Amino acid sequence: MTSSPRWLSDQEQRAWRALQQFGAPLAAALNRQLLADSALSSADYQVLVVLTETDGGVLRAGELGRETGWEKSRLSHHLKRMQARGLVRREECLTDGRGLLVVITDQGRQAIADAAPGHVATVRDLVIDALTPDQLRVLAEAGEAVGARLTAVNCRAAEADLAADESLTDRLEVPDVSTSS
Amino acid sequence: MTSSPRWLSDQEQRAWRALQQFGAPLAAALNRQLLADSALSSADYQVLVVLTETDGGVLRAGELGRETGWEKSRLSHHLKRMQARGLVRREECLTDGRGLLVVITDQGRQAIADAAPGHVATVRDLVIDALTPDQLRVLAEAGEAVGARLTAVNCRAAEADLAADESLTDRLEVPDVSTSS
Repeated sequence: MTSSPRWLSDQEQRAWRALQQFGAPLAAALNRQLLADSALSSADYQVLVVLTETDGGVLRAGELGRETGWEKSRLSHHLKRMQARGLVRREECLTDGRGLLVVITDQGRQAIADAAPGHVATVRDLVIDALTPDQLRVLAEAGEAVGARLTAVNCRAAEADLAADESLTDRLEVPDVSTSS
Repeated sequence: MTSSPRWLSDQEQRAWRALQQFGAPLAAALNRQLLADSALSSADYQVLVVLTETDGGVLRAGELGRETGWEKSRLSHHLKRMQARGLVRREECLTDGRGLLVVITDQGRQAIADAAPGHVATVRDLVIDALTPDQLRVLAEAGEAVGARLTAVNCRAAEADLAADESLTDRLEVPDVSTSS
């Protein structure tokens, strides 16, 4: 890069600093409340919410990655831990060979139903009730505008991941009979 | 909890969903750019930015925790790795016994100076230039309002951590001569 960087103006810097509150500080507070009041971490909660909103409580791992915004290795490790705790089940999708399906279990449904009232009360207390309806509206528009750009760059990265997976799958013998346990 | 939860309205739900874009999806995109184009991760970058803005490039670990919004164990592990890579130095603060100081090294200053132009260009591309000046202004106000609530709850947690540390320090022999290496 030879041209001089366009550093942020004071107003841009202020907005950038402020919106970082919606990242780690908010995540830390929500995670602390969930761990204190329920059997779930914030990461568990995110995964289970996405699954409960699908037909049949099932989703491809790749789509779950897009919904949570997590990188592939983080998602994979986390799903293993959730399966060990009985919250989800992972199944190979044998009809099209396009990787793992993640299914919410009855225990997972119960855990999120138990955790939801306390979680929503905390979201209200820390975020929603701190803002005016006008601020919430602008925040929705701004988040969606940024989200569109993020989806574009994160999808390109996810597709690169998927291409790497498919090249791996091609080199494995995939049985065409059910191996579900 | 006996009263029925105040679930989010459609408008509140939309804002809550949208602002989550400023969490993990944004962090993933920024981290990917930094890892591809510089010697730093996003976490390294955050720590080094905070340190470069202090007098002398030094801060207490506890204050660094408040600035980054990270929980104590995450901060502690991350600082160890940054020290091993020569980016920061950790020193006991012997004058008041109130825990660790974190100091940026010359190598840390060089690393962030090298990484900053590419990072700022990405922040512009994904966030700042996607929003209007009015959206940025409301985002700043909203982030600061939420930040004030988060600071309150996260500080209470940090103080509980600190109290636990001090009770540990009381039980250790702390030498009153310098042990810096």
